[in-house]
Amino acid sequence: MEAVNLRKKECKIVVAVDESEESMYALSWCLGNLISQNTTNTLVLLYVKPPPTVYSSFDAAGYMFFIDVITALEKYGSDLVNSVMGRAEALCGKFSGNINVERIVGSGDAKDVICNTVEKIKADTLVMGSHGYGFFKRALLGSVSDHCAKNVKCPVVIVKHPEKI
Amino acid sequence: MEAVNLRKKECKIVVAVDESEESMYALSWCLGNLISQNTTNTLVLLYVKPPPTVYSSFDAAGYMFFIDVITALEKYGSDLVNSVMGRAEALCGKFSGNINVERIVGSGDAKDVICNTVEKIKADTLVMGSHGYGFFKRALLGSVSDHCAKNVKCPVVIVKHPEKI
Repeated sequence: MEAVNLRKKECKIVVAVDESEESMYALSWCLGNLISQNTTNTLVLLYVKPPPTVYSSFDAAGYMFFIDVITALEKYGSDLVNSVMGRAEALCGKFSGNINVERIVGSGDAKDVICNTVEKIKADTLVMGSHGYGFFKRALLGSVSDHCAKNVKCPVVIVKHPEKI
Repeated sequence: MEAVNLRKKECKIVVAVDESEESMYALSWCLGNLISQNTTNTLVLLYVKPPPTVYSSFDAAGYMFFIDVITALEKYGSDLVNSVMGRAEALCGKFSGNINVERIVGSGDAKDVICNTVEKIKADTLVMGSHGYGFFKRALLGSVSDHCAKNVKCPVVIVKHPEKI
């Protein structure tokens, strides 16, 4: 008979956050259900930006215009990171439990970045929303959580927003 | 800003169990990570038997032999239910938390029975292993947890056995 897998003394939980209500709901669920008072909890808020833009060939005028658009989009992307992280940290701040909150901002294909980060930092649990990982809804619905559930080694919690079902 | 989704005072968790080591590991993970001392926890151990056998046409002698085989298989199925449930309850018994343990034995296609049970009893969380739901390994690897993660409304925890990865 196997021994009961009691909670570890230190527990590292990755929550994949984006600008969706669902990812904030997933974070709330995590705070309410996975954080124990008897454990040192590290909550890693992971946001994945899209991969850097690949520049196409333009003439000089078109290129300058294109650069302006790219710069504006990159500024928008940074603002979005700060907005999402700020909102997530405020949610954590409302919680009275024993948690250290860390930020990780990755860049690339969300599903690969999430899986690689979870492995790299040896997370104990991954928590994420069930639907497309944000930023211009670039991912097909469900495909990111599907991929992560299949590919990461630790337990994965997939949370749905009750109003979106 | 949404309020923190604090843990409910009563929490009903369904753990899908079968004869696999992975489902026992998923139960252990649940006991160690999802059971709070401040909550009345109902842990529903759900085992799904395969659908009743469909009888084919046989001559009298063949039919009698067939009935014997079916009876033996059904006896084996019942023994398996008791063995799995007994093992799961022993695991729960080792845990010092505040839990009521209930058994549900369903029959039919595992993925449908699990989803329907979760909805019917209004479970707060579903916990299951990532691989094929047991009994003669009748399901394709991963297909049951995939289906449940997509179709149930509550949060779903998919747990992998660390040695099987």
